[in-house]
Amino acid sequence: MSEHIYKVVELVGSSQTSIEKAIENAVSRASTTLKNLDWFEVMETRGHLQGGKVAHYQVKLKVGFRLE
Amino acid sequence: MSEHIYKVVELVGSSQTSIEKAIENAVSRASTTLKNLDWFEVMETRGHLQGGKVAHYQVKLKVGFRLE
Amino acid sequence: MSEHIYKVVELVGSSQTSIEKAIENAVSRASTTLKNLDWFEVMETRGHLQGGKVAHYQVKLKVGFRLE
Amino acid sequence: MSEHIYKVVELVGSSQTSIEKAIENAVSRASTTLKNLDWFEVMETRGHLQGGKVAHYQVKLKVGFRLE
Amino acid sequence: MSEHIYKVVELVGSSQTSIEKAIENAVSRASTTLKNLDWFEVMETRGHLQGGKVAHYQVKLKVGFRLE
Amino acid sequence: MSEHIYKVVELVGSSQTSIEKAIENAVSRASTTLKNLDWFEVMETRGHLQGGKVAHYQVKLKVGFRLE
Amino acid sequence: MSEHIYKVVELVGSSQTSIEKAIENAVSRASTTLKNLDWFEVMETRGHLQGGKVAHYQVKLKVGFRLE
Amino acid sequence: MSEHIYKVVELVGSSQTSIEKAIENAVSRASTTLKNLDWFEVMETRGHLQGGKVAHYQVKLKVGFRLE
Amino acid sequence: MSEHIYKVVELVGSSQTSIEKAIENAVSRASTTLKNLDWFEVMETRGHLQGGKVAHYQVKLKVGFRLE
Amino acid sequence: MSEHIYKVVELVGSSQTSIEKAIENAVSRASTTLKNLDWFEVMETRGHLQGGKVAHYQVKLKVGFRLE
Amino acid sequence: MSEHIYKVVELVGSSQTSIEKAIENAVSRASTTLKNLDWFEVMETRGHLQGGKVAHYQVKLKVGFRLE
Amino acid sequence: MSEHIYKVVELVGSSQTSIEKAIENAVSRASTTLKNLDWFEVMETRGHLQGGKVAHYQVKLKVGFRLE
Repeated sequence: MSEHIYKVVELVGSSQTSIEKAIENAVSRASTTLKNLDWFEVMETRGHLQGGKVAHYQVKLKVGFRLE
Repeated sequence: MSEHIYKVVELVGSSQTSIEKAIENAVSRASTTLKNLDWFEVMETRGHLQGGKVAHYQVKLKVGFRLE
Repeated sequence: MSEHIYKVVELVGSSQTSIEKAIENAVSRASTTLKNLDWFEVMETRGHLQGGKVAHYQVKLKVGFRLE
Repeated sequence: MSEHIYKVVELVGSSQTSIEKAIENAVSRASTTLKNLDWFEVMETRGHLQGGKVAHYQVKLKVGFRLE
Repeated sequence: MSEHIYKVVELVGSSQTSIEKAIENAVSRASTTLKNLDWFEVMETRGHLQGGKVAHYQVKLKVGFRLE
Repeated sequence: MSEHIYKVVELVGSSQTSIEKAIENAVSRASTTLKNLDWFEVMETRGHLQGGKVAHYQVKLKVGFRLE
Repeated sequence: MSEHIYKVVELVGSSQTSIEKAIENAVSRASTTLKNLDWFEVMETRGHLQGGKVAHYQVKLKVGFRLE
Repeated sequence: MSEHIYKVVELVGSSQTSIEKAIENAVSRASTTLKNLDWFEVMETRGHLQGGKVAHYQVKLKVGFRLE
Repeated sequence: MSEHIYKVVELVGSSQTSIEKAIENAVSRASTTLKNLDWFEVMETRGHLQGGKVAHYQVKLKVGFRLE
Repeated sequence: MSEHIYKVVELVGSSQTSIEKAIENAVSRASTTLKNLDWFEVMETRGHLQGGKVAHYQVKLKVGFRLE
Repeated sequence: MSEHIYKVVELVGSSQTSIEKAIENAVSRASTTLKNLDWFEVMETRGHLQGGKVAHYQVKLKVGFRLE
Repeated sequence: MSEHIYKVVELVGSSQTSIEKAIENAVSRASTTLKNLDWFEVMETRGHLQGGKVAHYQVKLKVGFRLE
């Protein structure tokens, strides 16, 4: 159990409403093609501005999953 | 179009309720004096504590805008 | 007043719902044993995934408090 | 449109002539297997030396592409 | 002479052809409104991709100038 | 020869006995699906504790391999 | 009161005598054009050498001030 | 279970023989006064030299433990 | 002797007069409750401004002491 | 062959025309006194400005060479 | 005694067997030409892969020695 | 004039009295064997503690000098 190997992929999720939603969007997308998703780490939080407002948040995150 | 020049300014926004609101407060204030705001990047997230609770969130961010 | 000394401790708070709630959980726990909590700084934002969803957010933060 | 998800891959391109050519070589190779390439970020610039001269430049870069 | 004060501003220049040209475009634009430009430092090198090729290089740089 | 392109993947290997064994476990697993493995770089060394002892070492590493 | 917005500018101060004096020179100059200066952060400490001695210290600092 | 709070302490362990032994020495010492030790992270690896040889390895690590 | 274990605590000292005095104030306070203080490392140098002048320097430092 | 030892020296090269030329100037100078130059890594890219233009690029690089 | 001056050199040691052996190889080589070696700090741990296995570990380290 | 090459060496200076004096001691020692010293950059500020007081400040700095 303690000698698992994990792979880590980097994703950018976005959301018009919140940082958490941007993370969840990226994780949700990853789960459509990857199994055994185990943890994430936020690398950068940024976003686009339009009309003097936040148009959407963008979160770059690493997602780790266990290789079988 | 691809040879635009941008300027980047650093701001600290604060909010009693959330990290997103602190970002939006800073962006909103910037938009009163700057045009063509294009993106932001979060540099630091911190805050003050009072009475053992978060009094307000403070987010240091960079805001980029296109020079005309 | 200007020559106060502060101590800084590192904590990890977690929450099933948001980054802010993870911060507040850590600060709330710290306030049960430490007085004069003054500020916090977010060091890392990460979390665990289960069933292709965020199971909980984990925020590593530093909390500063004034020594008497 | 604002809730796209991107994946980021890390590549090392090399070139005997310039940093830009090393970047372009890596991007060109990536485009043979990945669609919707959107941006790159340079992570490291280095290279090998032979006979007291630059034998080739090596640029480690991240390349982001939109997931469909 | 040795007690000059400098201000540092952050800019992003872009160019379809090279990293150097992106730097020079930013410096050239800065020189239209700022005097006594003295040095620059490259902070990030990135760019946009279109059709599997580099559409333009973007260089984030700091530019220092002497205050009078 | 000097214009090779490499891809870099991020893995976490673990071992109950040593940092080197955690690295070797990750590399060994990568070699089952990737050819032309060329170098690795250690990014983080950490581990889990149980009963006041190191239960296993975890090493996050990047592994580079040549694309054909 | 807790929802103030701050702007942060980057300056380089110099002094022939000390790091503190270089900081104070930059702050003093900033105060001639900016109001509500609130804090500073040292980013880099460096200097020029002449005749095998320190000719002057140069401190790059960020200065934050409250926007009204 | 998912809303645990952890505290993180920083230690330096040393050993004449290996990096792993330096980590284990620090963890072992921590376990004499702290319960629920959960993970460690290596921050720095260094050491002293005597007579042109490694006299001992020193590893600075963070150790996290669950607060009850 | 070579297998000592050290603990590292983080403090912020402040002083109206100098960076060194802020360090010494923090160390002096630490010595009232901790024995065997061995070294310090400066992490951040910052301060508050009032009336366009440095009101006080604040130095965040780590202090290491030997556990018995 | 696999147990070579390398030394790494830090240099700053400059050029009026390009980043690559600044690197090559530094490498060329190093090769006049050092043998077995093997690789370089770019640490910083900066430069001086005169008359609102880049006067010269300065690249700080590390150069590694094999010890015999 | 407390006003010693040290010089720091950067080396890369390699070993087919372990990280510690790579460090010791570099230190041993340094001791053939430098006296008063005092400490080392690990900067990077990496290595080459051949045939899907670690061919050798490479450790970049700084070595400090006292100038007389 | 603009195509000079510089070498950068790393030193640690120490002083019982101040950070500036530790820098000056290192620079002064460097000037006994190196010509054309041009600039320095502070990398780390630390020190030893004895009897609950600062025994001496240690400053790790890089010193750049022009190669002829």
